[in-house]
Amino acid sequence: MALSSLTVSAQFGAPRQNPTVPSVTENVVEDFKPATSNQDSKQYPMVNSQRMVRAQISAPNATSVGLDIAGKIYSMTKDEKGVWTGTSEPQDEGFHYYQLNIDGASVPDPGSLYYYGASRWGSGIEIPSTDQDFWQVKNVPQGSMSEVFYWSTYTEKMRRCHVYLPNEYYTNPTKKFPVLYLQHGMGENEYGWAEQGHTAQILDNLIAEGKAVPCIIVMDNGLNTSRPGEAGGFGGFGGPRPQGQRPQGAPGQGGPRRGGFGGFSEGFKNVLFNDIIPMVEKNYRVIADPQHRAYAGLSMGGMQAREITLANPEKFAYVGSFSSGAWSVDQVKASEGFAKNVRLLFMSGGGKENMGCVEAARNIKEQLGMNAVGYESPGTAHEWHTWRRSLYQFAQLIFK
Amino acid sequence: MALSSLTVSAQFGAPRQNPTVPSVTENVVEDFKPATSNQDSKQYPMVNSQRMVRAQISAPNATSVGLDIAGKIYSMTKDEKGVWTGTSEPQDEGFHYYQLNIDGASVPDPGSLYYYGASRWGSGIEIPSTDQDFWQVKNVPQGSMSEVFYWSTYTEKMRRCHVYLPNEYYTNPTKKFPVLYLQHGMGENEYGWAEQGHTAQILDNLIAEGKAVPCIIVMDNGLNTSRPGEAGGFGGFGGPRPQGQRPQGAPGQGGPRRGGFGGFSEGFKNVLFNDIIPMVEKNYRVIADPQHRAYAGLSMGGMQAREITLANPEKFAYVGSFSSGAWSVDQVKASEGFAKNVRLLFMSGGGKENMGCVEAARNIKEQLGMNAVGYESPGTAHEWHTWRRSLYQFAQLIFK
Repeated sequence: MALSSLTVSAQFGAPRQNPTVPSVTENVVEDFKPATSNQDSKQYPMVNSQRMVRAQISAPNATSVGLDIAGKIYSMTKDEKGVWTGTSEPQDEGFHYYQLNIDGASVPDPGSLYYYGASRWGSGIEIPSTDQDFWQVKNVPQGSMSEVFYWSTYTEKMRRCHVYLPNEYYTNPTKKFPVLYLQHGMGENEYGWAEQGHTAQILDNLIAEGKAVPCIIVMDNGLNTSRPGEAGGFGGFGGPRPQGQRPQGAPGQGGPRRGGFGGFSEGFKNVLFNDIIPMVEKNYRVIADPQHRAYAGLSMGGMQAREITLANPEKFAYVGSFSSGAWSVDQVKASEGFAKNVRLLFMSGGGKENMGCVEAARNIKEQLGMNAVGYESPGTAHEWHTWRRSLYQFAQLIFK
Repeated sequence: MALSSLTVSAQFGAPRQNPTVPSVTENVVEDFKPATSNQDSKQYPMVNSQRMVRAQISAPNATSVGLDIAGKIYSMTKDEKGVWTGTSEPQDEGFHYYQLNIDGASVPDPGSLYYYGASRWGSGIEIPSTDQDFWQVKNVPQGSMSEVFYWSTYTEKMRRCHVYLPNEYYTNPTKKFPVLYLQHGMGENEYGWAEQGHTAQILDNLIAEGKAVPCIIVMDNGLNTSRPGEAGGFGGFGGPRPQGQRPQGAPGQGGPRRGGFGGFSEGFKNVLFNDIIPMVEKNYRVIADPQHRAYAGLSMGGMQAREITLANPEKFAYVGSFSSGAWSVDQVKASEGFAKNVRLLFMSGGGKENMGCVEAARNIKEQLGMNAVGYESPGTAHEWHTWRRSLYQFAQLIFK
């Protein structure tokens, strides 16, 4: 597993200090360009053709500044004007969270746009990838990505989700659409697929090429699902909660090998069935039957999808599990009706994750006779480019 | 004018260092609570009942840390664990941009959510206001706030805007709606009204109370309107541009007293008329006539609205100018048709801005016989709470 230690410490409790290493100075190709994930007008951070990251910040009175990315802190060096610059080793192509460390303070880089992941809003950087064209904003018919609030009878709070509507939702005002429920991972929230996931662009582009069926996509928060009075739950949107609390059913109390995340999928299952699906089917023009309903998630979100769809195989026709481990033949067989009802089980992972999804899908297909597809993202690990590619693949297979 | 110096330096060129002052330690009421503008689970920054801000950050190796808000840097002090804490003087109620300064580096506070203003994404803090109920998320019929991209024939780029659709847009699928075009200020962008402006909540709540006519609201970027090859323009969304470039027609080349921002409103006028309005009237169910079209803006956005509506009084029936100065009788009189065509001219400002909008509206009404309304936001300056209140007032007067 190639989780960055920033992610690991945020996800699994005990924060740990990444090791400090020198900036890279040898054999650096000086063709750095501003990252596309930067704020408008900001030159730094930059990326070069070797996929090295160069950060820079003015901190004239600091004694030590570091670039904290992918599990290492690269020492930056100061010039005569008090500007610190440092260069990392090559990174995987795609999107990564990072931060700066200034005299012991971990802070967002003022040059970056901010993304939610590793349990915080903070810096992220896009390392150009050979196939990045598929998620760019292009001059094709555009859908929309909405922020929507709704009342949850389960949590007794207003909740926030994101809803993608395809272009045809606007141009064809009587047509009804299938729906994909698409969930984030641990330490992330309902912004992940909308922002660094580029869901709207992936779908707009696929639909424009005739490769995906126009559908509605609903992205919700899989973690803040505690009921009033429940200990340790995550708060509502934006609401503060006491520091140091851990969610119920946190990893370690029952990891994927022991059957799932326990409390995590229970809370989200209740919100999904009691609140989210009814809200979507009431407020939008939806084909409200299981044959037109898909559910996919990444990492923890894929583990939730596994638990929930194996226990409720009559509710979804298409299931996606991205970087959530390979499902076994026995797991699927133990669910009465899954192999019969579900038209597609899609399992994927980053090539560097070595999850064995391709082989697992082959086994399930051969032994259970159901449609199962495995996909491996070349050269990537437990990170967003794996998941964008997974969505790109999955979206071409559903509702057909 | 009570622009914060953070805003001033970002808006008007030469960055200037705010003066450093000691943290407030006397007569501080110790009832601090986490700000509602914080990231989930983050305790700091906090606000007390005196509207003082308390910031805190761990920076064990730093020698100097400051809280930079409203034109002053408050020195923070370090405890034995390396955690720095500081407290500001009382702030105006409402929303303010701020940042931390660590050994000379100006950085976002890792505790805050991030907002675009002062020409950067960075920290913001909400100081509770007596009337904040009007922009809270409530369990009322919800509209949606969408991110939408479209092709601009003028800039020859894809552009991004935000579109608010009222709840009834979804529930009443054949109804057509009036449209308000609503613009941000200098150093801000198309996120301002959608995020810190809480436009969707203000409208959802007003519509639920029967106080506003359901309408579509379109929020675009009034600054990145340069054509290909034009010097100094702002880039497209997300795209980097060289540092240090100034936009054409920047303040100083023609301020509001000399007739407006020149190049600023020219570029936006072309995008508005050639691209934005046609896109909206093509893609949404819109009552596409001037009687159902409103245009308002804040600060620079209000100056653009003034120039554009005075020059094109046949295109809009309702005009709003928030914190953009008082319009004179002569200005309105010089526009042929404005007093006759426009059903409402609304001018507002913060009480601390002393813009004289109430008197100016009275003069225009008395001397020109048109409907003009002035509003003054009690106790606020050139800041977002003034503009939220202005929208709250304006939205109750339009399309009726």
